[in-house]
Amino acid sequence: MNLSDITHPNQLHGLSIRQLEDVTRQIREKHLQTIAASGGHLGPGLGVVELTVALYQTLDLDRDKVIWDVGHQAYPHKMLTGRYHDFHTLRQKDGIAGYLKRCESKFDHFGAGHASTSISAGLGMALARDAKGEDYKVVSIIGDGALTGGMALEAINHAGHLPHTNLMVVLNDNEMSISPNVGAISRYLNKVRLSDPVQFLSDNLEEQFKHLPFFGESLTPDMERVKEGMKRLAMPKVGAVIEELGFKYFGPIDGHNLEELISTFKQAHKTPGPVFVHVATVKGKGYELAEKDQVGYHAQSPFNLATGKAIPSNKPKPPSYSKVFAHTLTTLAQNNPKIIGITAAMATGTGLDKLQAKLPKQYIDVGIAEQHAVTLAAGLACEGIRPVTAIYSTFLQRAYDQVLHDVCIQNLPVFLCLDRAGIVGADGPTHQGLYDIAYLRCIPNLTIMAPKDEAELQRMVVTGINYTDGPIAMRYPRGNGVGVPLMEEGWEPIPVGKGEILRSGDDVLLVAYGTMVHQSLQVAELLKEHGIEATVINARFVKPLDTELILPLAQRIGKVVTLEEGCLMGGFGSAVAEALMDNDVVVPIKRFGVPDKLVDHAKPDQSKADLGLTSPQIAEQIRQLFFKVAQPSVVA
Amino acid sequence: MNLSDITHPNQLHGLSIRQLEDVTRQIREKHLQTIAASGGHLGPGLGVVELTVALYQTLDLDRDKVIWDVGHQAYPHKMLTGRYHDFHTLRQKDGIAGYLKRCESKFDHFGAGHASTSISAGLGMALARDAKGEDYKVVSIIGDGALTGGMALEAINHAGHLPHTNLMVVLNDNEMSISPNVGAISRYLNKVRLSDPVQFLSDNLEEQFKHLPFFGESLTPDMERVKEGMKRLAMPKVGAVIEELGFKYFGPIDGHNLEELISTFKQAHKTPGPVFVHVATVKGKGYELAEKDQVGYHAQSPFNLATGKAIPSNKPKPPSYSKVFAHTLTTLAQNNPKIIGITAAMATGTGLDKLQAKLPKQYIDVGIAEQHAVTLAAGLACEGIRPVTAIYSTFLQRAYDQVLHDVCIQNLPVFLCLDRAGIVGADGPTHQGLYDIAYLRCIPNLTIMAPKDEAELQRMVVTGINYTDGPIAMRYPRGNGVGVPLMEEGWEPIPVGKGEILRSGDDVLLVAYGTMVHQSLQVAELLKEHGIEATVINARFVKPLDTELILPLAQRIGKVVTLEEGCLMGGFGSAVAEALMDNDVVVPIKRFGVPDKLVDHAKPDQSKADLGLTSPQIAEQIRQLFFKVAQPSVVA
Repeated sequence: MNLSDITHPNQLHGLSIRQLEDVTRQIREKHLQTIAASGGHLGPGLGVVELTVALYQTLDLDRDKVIWDVGHQAYPHKMLTGRYHDFHTLRQKDGIAGYLKRCESKFDHFGAGHASTSISAGLGMALARDAKGEDYKVVSIIGDGALTGGMALEAINHAGHLPHTNLMVVLNDNEMSISPNVGAISRYLNKVRLSDPVQFLSDNLEEQFKHLPFFGESLTPDMERVKEGMKRLAMPKVGAVIEELGFKYFGPIDGHNLEELISTFKQAHKTPGPVFVHVATVKGKGYELAEKDQVGYHAQSPFNLATGKAIPSNKPKPPSYSKVFAHTLTTLAQNNPKIIGITAAMATGTGLDKLQAKLPKQYIDVGIAEQHAVTLAAGLACEGIRPVTAIYSTFLQRAYDQVLHDVCIQNLPVFLCLDRAGIVGADGPTHQGLYDIAYLRCIPNLTIMAPKDEAELQRMVVTGINYTDGPIAMRYPRGNGVGVPLMEEGWEPIPVGKGEILRSGDDVLLVAYGTMVHQSLQVAELLKEHGIEATVINARFVKPLDTELILPLAQRIGKVVTLEEGCLMGGFGSAVAEALMDNDVVVPIKRFGVPDKLVDHAKPDQSKADLGLTSPQIAEQIRQLFFKVAQPSVVA
Repeated sequence: MNLSDITHPNQLHGLSIRQLEDVTRQIREKHLQTIAASGGHLGPGLGVVELTVALYQTLDLDRDKVIWDVGHQAYPHKMLTGRYHDFHTLRQKDGIAGYLKRCESKFDHFGAGHASTSISAGLGMALARDAKGEDYKVVSIIGDGALTGGMALEAINHAGHLPHTNLMVVLNDNEMSISPNVGAISRYLNKVRLSDPVQFLSDNLEEQFKHLPFFGESLTPDMERVKEGMKRLAMPKVGAVIEELGFKYFGPIDGHNLEELISTFKQAHKTPGPVFVHVATVKGKGYELAEKDQVGYHAQSPFNLATGKAIPSNKPKPPSYSKVFAHTLTTLAQNNPKIIGITAAMATGTGLDKLQAKLPKQYIDVGIAEQHAVTLAAGLACEGIRPVTAIYSTFLQRAYDQVLHDVCIQNLPVFLCLDRAGIVGADGPTHQGLYDIAYLRCIPNLTIMAPKDEAELQRMVVTGINYTDGPIAMRYPRGNGVGVPLMEEGWEPIPVGKGEILRSGDDVLLVAYGTMVHQSLQVAELLKEHGIEATVINARFVKPLDTELILPLAQRIGKVVTLEEGCLMGGFGSAVAEALMDNDVVVPIKRFGVPDKLVDHAKPDQSKADLGLTSPQIAEQIRQLFFKVAQPSVVA
């Protein structure tokens, strides 16, 4: 059967193992071609091709619901659910999303981008099904990495307590998050993976006992206890923890053996209550380079399929913010053993793998566990360590209470480094780092800053390390720096709460934050072409805001523009507006930033253009709003 | 030894069991007297008197660190660490806090108010200790209820993976959160509680095996497996799950037997790596009424020690917002089986115990697991159920990403009900519900409202249930309504996004939200005494804001005042200011709300007075700011 002919996953019904194998081959081919051409998540999808095909053969997907976790491993799912022909548009503007999306397909029952949500969502659907008296299967798929996330464990705790609620959890155990997994659960699962699948023994165990020499028909209480112990031996020791938590355990099974997968899924479907199917998979399966380097091939930019090498871009790019961050931190940490960098399973993404390589004792990966990462940092800070917690803006949302309750209320000197703050591009709405300014700004005791470029980031890393009066956060964007010269060392800290004037002009005041500072300079140049002279302030700190600098200028110039790469609701512009209001500076204010809607996946520049946030768009809007009559466009 | 003479916990060293028992008796006495007189958490502290005394006898608290979870069970700890003589000021303004606070005592190593933080914090301290090459003990105490919180499980996963990091986790297992626990972990622990403590057998097990008839000196591989199974039998089957997660398990031990506690703690202290001591306690121990009604006596307002009955207040009070909420919801749910109420271990606090009693099938308690509660609701909403998730404002912080990523990005019709929003009083900074307006307002797709009184709350419950275009949130305060008449049924929904004018006047525009609406009317009356006529708007919705109503009035009246019981940074006032800015209404704005600092425990009225938020204070500030010359105070 041609994969291109499959428009509904139920078309897999009735196919022979050989035919299914043929489908898996085609999925891999398409998967590799697509990612090689346009980039995306490579290893996760390759690991679950057989799992997906086998599971879907045992389900009726017009009724049954499969909830994938994270979503970056759901590319095979997308190809089997009517998106094969659009699959080449993956992660491109108006194309197929890189994660799951309810609005994209009726088979995407629950959108996802962050990890650890599928069991909670699936349990909700199962309870809804039962409340409505309906009858269909709900299957939540979760990776072993995502299983270390607190919410997944909360959900298992709840589901295991509901013996009459049918829910299948499929563990896609590839022994990896993006990096190798950490944690006791992972170690336990690894142990399990090495065991024989023996769960089928247990059913007729009573029978077998009778034939052992020292067991008779009627047992003394002592012997009953011995029998219980023997049962534990014959039962899957491997799944004991899962069984103690109320799930029937199936596995471990070979995640690349279709026959074994199908027969196990069928058996598990017949089992009432919560069931747990443990599938051992190989991340990157079927593409040798990816199997060998599972971290490197987790996600890829466009690459040559034959060599596995990334296709070089046309011109050399400045280093990424993450790289500069990690390099600076590592350099500082070499001279300061009190610095400890913390990541929540994002060693490569945050660049902290550099720290790990150089100073393994000053590096902690806690797994996908952002809450714990932040409160652990709070504990470290109590004892005089300088914890530097690097978490993407979007993932710090998962540790919001920890930032507020554990770090900021106690005023502990934790340095929070928010990578991927701002518009993130191809990852789309689930990953946009747009909310951090608003959600952090309202928390007392927290100092918040953003560098205008990668050189200022270096200085802010020093600033953050040096600042011990309380918690301090720094946001910086995904992608490459603007190309300013870097220093190897000798970075000067920036005075906390102090902005800087980059340019002076009497017609309009541009107050910019982070990535929008350089753009503000472009805007000022464009305005100048129309005879409008702008003052440009690099605010550096949204909290405390440099009111000494901003207020007199705002009062004098009388027209204020704020610029930020974040949500307008409660963001940087609102902070400036609040300061003006509170100090009786009553002037018109125009705020540029991301309006109150989701930002879809696209190239960052495309998103910015759609949002009216390119420099020419901003300059034009400023002219229209403030200088329509005084500076008619014909002058230009 | 007199408890009143103990100013340092090390004074417990060397006391006999009998002397220690005498100390526990005095602690209980003081505890009961204090709570009876001024209110506070009763049951939790009574349950851990022996645990605290025994543990402290085995530690050197000048060096060793004990981290209590939540903090409401740490009253015995407070009495033993220099706060006995101030203990009568518990939970009163400028008195002893009801939770832990680093600034209150050097023995409060980590502040707490929310559950599930102690293992993360303790592990951070243990890692800091090792990084600095120091040597002291770190003990994290956690309740079985708090153990269902995701962060605690994340921390166990991490700690269990660090065999060389000495950390003791003490499980205070009283089988309760505030309500009886839910979840598979709790069920597992209950099973464990009923088992014999047999961990001491395992050490010399090898020896014992040799004497069994069917084991010899040299075993075949098969017999090795049998032996392993026998070991599991003799070893604590009970602690197997914990041991699989990398902890040495001790227990279960009787939490009210000092001898057993002390000998077990001593043994556990000698054990390297992560250890887990399972202590079975009785919540409310020593006060019969509390032992019998553990939910009712979790926390108390002042009561008669002999009868256990609350001391009636002088005048009858209107019902609490929580009660009106629960009553309204239950009434609606009776006619709509699609409504399901969800709580995260706060059945009594949110009033949802009423729903549980009447309609148990339409009620879900997920345990202390706010993240799961919200994403479970998202799953329910996907399938056409109307989930109503009632969580305190302060605890919804723990599900921030779930609100954003799982509910709002997907635009799912989940009804979030934020109880205890605003100033909460005696619970203090960890529990203040001050941030929700700011942290929710920046999330796309979310509708957010607050009722002006308990009758409007009834209508908003209907509004929330009826609204299926997306997620909707309602905030309402702790405590009693304002006393307006309630309706039993027939509640009219409020048009989404529509505010109302409560009073008209041409001098100043007061735009108020939630609890501040009634106060705004008082302010208007006070202003009137000075000849200032105010228009008062009940905004009802902060998002979408009723700009149609507000903007023309703001433009015409020219002086705008906003009033909210929430943080000023990014809050309701900023929303109004943003709307004015974005629509070119340039007028002075004065925002009233909670400034950017922590609000300590005190009576709510005291806090409000300290913050300048009483009606006379507000009226006076408005006069000073806007009417200083035009309306001199001598006119009044």
